[in-house]
Amino acid sequence: MTRVLAKRFGCATEFTLEVLGGKWKTIILCYLKERPLRYGELRSVLPKLSDKVLTERLRELEEAGLVARRTAGRTNGTTVYCLTERGNSLRRVLTELYEWGEAQADAFGVAYDWPLTKLSEPAAT
Amino acid sequence: MTRVLAKRFGCATEFTLEVLGGKWKTIILCYLKERPLRYGELRSVLPKLSDKVLTERLRELEEAGLVARRTAGRTNGTTVYCLTERGNSLRRVLTELYEWGEAQADAFGVAYDWPLTKLSEPAAT
Repeated sequence: MTRVLAKRFGCATEFTLEVLGGKWKTIILCYLKERPLRYGELRSVLPKLSDKVLTERLRELEEAGLVARRTAGRTNGTTVYCLTERGNSLRRVLTELYEWGEAQADAFGVAYDWPLTKLSEPAAT
Repeated sequence: MTRVLAKRFGCATEFTLEVLGGKWKTIILCYLKERPLRYGELRSVLPKLSDKVLTERLRELEEAGLVARRTAGRTNGTTVYCLTERGNSLRRVLTELYEWGEAQADAFGVAYDWPLTKLSEPAAT
């Protein structure tokens, strides 16, 4: 069942953060912004998440109407997760969240295990 | 003591979300992006937060180097909270978070108690 959102929020930012739904869901959306991904691909870029938690977060994102599953590949019917139209509307928010972290990496002396550039191209189908 | 950040993150988005530090801290930053605010002003636009929690979040934002206290007003020495240079670097992220919520309000049928336009001008000092 689709989660029912509250109708009043303190401010617009509170609402956006409610829709994004927390750290891991936001990160999953950031990866799916790049291209549709198979479950195994999400699994490999999110090694901190257990299968149980990743599955739950994906289901919540589907319930919120931000992510959909679709069948890709004419022959093998692989299932991929992708952003819905509503999920796509968050693209600029997600881009800013990513780009700030990328731009500040040197200043803060941090490094990333899974920059988006490490997402390999999908296997030909 | 300044909180020590980890040095490795899964991706840039994870790092940005770590710096923002959760829902209420992000919302406080959004208000301070508009102008420096007195504690009482923050209190009035964040009625869901207790004094204890608001004080803690502000202290954490100061420890993270995103917010500073400064004395405003030549005569009465009012203390205001404002964004530091590091806090200011998050301005585009904060703007996107706010603007998405504002743009989507009608589509989702939500209303806001404290839109930024309701922040009154500061009292003359």
